Amino acid sequence: MEKTDILIVGGSAAGVTAAVTVRRYYPQSKITLIRKEEKVLIPCGIPYIFGTLGSPEKNLIPDTVLSKNSISLIIDEVTFINKDDKAITTSNGKTIKYEKLVLATGSLPLVPPVPGVELDNVFTVKKDVGYLTELLQALEKAKDVVIIGGGFIGLEFADECKKRKNLNNVTVIELLPHCLLLACDDEICIRVEKKLSERGIKILSNKRAEAILGKKMVEYVKLDNGQKLKADIVILGIGVIPNVKLARESGLKFNEKEGIWVDDFMRTSDESIFACGDCVQKRCYLSGVATAIRLASQATTEARIAGANLFGVRRRMDCAIGIFSTCFGDLAIGSAGITESRAGELGIGVVTAEVAAPDKHPGSIPGAQELGVKLLFEKDTGLLLGGQVYGGKSVGELTNFIGSMIQNKMRADEVCTFQIGTHPMLTASPVAYQVVNAAQIAVVKMRKG
Amino acid sequence: MEKTDILIVGGSAAGVTAAVTVRRYYPQSKITLIRKEEKVLIPCGIPYIFGTLGSPEKNLIPDTVLSKNSISLIIDEVTFINKDDKAITTSNGKTIKYEKLVLATGSLPLVPPVPGVELDNVFTVKKDVGYLTELLQALEKAKDVVIIGGGFIGLEFADECKKRKNLNNVTVIELLPHCLLLACDDEICIRVEKKLSERGIKILSNKRAEAILGKKMVEYVKLDNGQKLKADIVILGIGVIPNVKLARESGLKFNEKEGIWVDDFMRTSDESIFACGDCVQKRCYLSGVATAIRLASQATTEARIAGANLFGVRRRMDCAIGIFSTCFGDLAIGSAGITESRAGELGIGVVTAEVAAPDKHPGSIPGAQELGVKLLFEKDTGLLLGGQVYGGKSVGELTNFIGSMIQNKMRADEVCTFQIGTHPMLTASPVAYQVVNAAQIAVVKMRKG
Repeated sequence: MEKTDILIVGGSAAGVTAAVTVRRYYPQSKITLIRKEEKVLIPCGIPYIFGTLGSPEKNLIPDTVLSKNSISLIIDEVTFINKDDKAITTSNGKTIKYEKLVLATGSLPLVPPVPGVELDNVFTVKKDVGYLTELLQALEKAKDVVIIGGGFIGLEFADECKKRKNLNNVTVIELLPHCLLLACDDEICIRVEKKLSERGIKILSNKRAEAILGKKMVEYVKLDNGQKLKADIVILGIGVIPNVKLARESGLKFNEKEGIWVDDFMRTSDESIFACGDCVQKRCYLSGVATAIRLASQATTEARIAGANLFGVRRRMDCAIGIFSTCFGDLAIGSAGITESRAGELGIGVVTAEVAAPDKHPGSIPGAQELGVKLLFEKDTGLLLGGQVYGGKSVGELTNFIGSMIQNKMRADEVCTFQIGTHPMLTASPVAYQVVNAAQIAVVKMRKG
Repeated sequence: MEKTDILIVGGSAAGVTAAVTVRRYYPQSKITLIRKEEKVLIPCGIPYIFGTLGSPEKNLIPDTVLSKNSISLIIDEVTFINKDDKAITTSNGKTIKYEKLVLATGSLPLVPPVPGVELDNVFTVKKDVGYLTELLQALEKAKDVVIIGGGFIGLEFADECKKRKNLNNVTVIELLPHCLLLACDDEICIRVEKKLSERGIKILSNKRAEAILGKKMVEYVKLDNGQKLKADIVILGIGVIPNVKLARESGLKFNEKEGIWVDDFMRTSDESIFACGDCVQKRCYLSGVATAIRLASQATTEARIAGANLFGVRRRMDCAIGIFSTCFGDLAIGSAGITESRAGELGIGVVTAEVAAPDKHPGSIPGAQELGVKLLFEKDTGLLLGGQVYGGKSVGELTNFIGSMIQNKMRADEVCTFQIGTHPMLTASPVAYQVVNAAQIAVVKMRKG
């Protein structure tokens, strides 16, 4: 029987980060990572395989991260955890004993209950090299692609597919009035839809895919208004569900929809077993209720906490804020914290302010483009609750900047006197700097009412 | 005699921001801004006039900022403040009474005590359209340019001059062992010097300009090692001193080197007079001693505080952290807080950690380049004291992100479990994200020693 000090189950962002974090604290421990995939895809890079990168092989988490950190790798699937013996068994019939176990089993694509999803050339966004290679090959021969789901994964797929010369039509079907509505308020959603339309993508919002039609292969997608869209390929991008199979079969506390239960230290209901990443439950930092923030970045934060806590509590996981960014051509967008519409649903009174200015200064600097910031403050306290951004390539880190202000529980009056650095080639002018000016506008609005 | 409620003296970043801030709080007040320049240059944009922009006229703060906010503009020079009468007089003989006065008189270029500085074609970086037009015209006919001073202004000038086809040699003379040493530690300074050398700029560090030689026009710069450099133009970029002339002549408390004295609310020694920007004294957030952080971004923070406090204290100015960024071609750098060498001078024990990774992910995404982060924590407390960054265009906002963590007094263990957002096209991968990983390395280092 094999033995290891620490066993990590799962080799994506959470598993790798947990393993590396453990190694930093325990230079001498035997750390083993077990995963079922021969090769592991970078999760957020998957859409880019189909346009920018050109092959799944160009979008892999390199195994050198493991070998450099002396982490043993086993390719096999864990089928059961014997909690009493502190041992796992695998589909190859192996048994491995552990001191501490970290579950990072990730998530699985959600398949909607639509007739026809079983037809050939209907794909989900499965994190599997072989599967995505099939999708790539199918795309090479396709003319018409329909993407069901206008969240950021669906839109990223649409934008990348559109880069393929052989495709005639790329269409996105979204149930809600706008794409991206769970992450952003209307203004930014509309901005993104406009950009995607300019790039030749058709967006059908407020529509439900009622059926996927075809004999063996998909031929059409039928909408709830009766419209029939030609489709050689359908991609289902409606979200993910936590992969709790192993937790369920091994008797750990979990919730089918929300994920494996963990405490603030990322411990499961078994004190020797930790969990992190898409497979675990998350709570919204504002409402405390379960939230579906399944992002690789969030997964690595949890992994850094789980990895440090294995042999004694060092860190505590805060509730999830939700920080994300994406881009479509020259338009990048980002969002941190909650949106105005979500605040409304939660019954939280807010004051919002929006400021747009060039992202370089003067605006005549080559490459300058408009960068807009919307900030959202709690009406009673002035606490920063969320921020949304559109602009150029600086949006990713600017969103992190806003995320840091939310995590530090800053108020509007603090944000608007924040010390910042600016440069003609890299940021807005200090006079026009969007984040502080939006906060200033909000401060004055709050005084009035 | 003219009367105004609020009079702002100075029309650059601090003056304009103070005026706009006052307007937000007092929609009905009469606000007047008086400045001596017909047109106001964007201060940080000045170097870019000489390569990227092509003319001072393309680098102006637009007066529409004032007109849109109903701020009256007077072009004239204030020569005296009669504090008892609460009135100023101008060089055109005008008298204007005020309720509250804001001084934003800025800074003046420092002229080194080097023989020959008075020769023709020896220029400082004066914020004056006419003067810089002369420099531009001189540059059009020049072959050899010598820049004295390798701080960021000097280097930005060098890089922009080098874009002019007519110039043969652009040489920077720096007194210290490396350029930029007051803002960054060696590693980044060396990286910038290498980039500038690749771009054809000669950097002579550890050298002092002993004399500027010529008859009427400059012909040579003589160094302390005897070397003589041919020069049609010399640009002095060794820093600025606060412009305290008006404060001095009007009997306000000031220090010739440090600037106009202000309290935490940006009030001068006269309770009706506030001051902000390059003309006021600043204190280092760590040591409390006077610091020479004269950046437009810092000036606007002070102006937002001064502007809000005029008729009752609302805000308090923290000590200055110093956040800046710049770029040379595809290499951008940034720095927030203090450097390792400065910490050493202050006797503060620190733990540092450096992490480099591609700024997109996977690294094969087109346009990806290395982005490195160095963080600096107080050894005893784990408090984040400073951060330095090199990389691509995301460096400006990433530096602000680090600046926000310093201002929020975050510790290493908090930084390394910070929630972040990542995206293939916009940031490093979540596994490799430099800021959190640098903090993690520091945490482990601190445990050991």
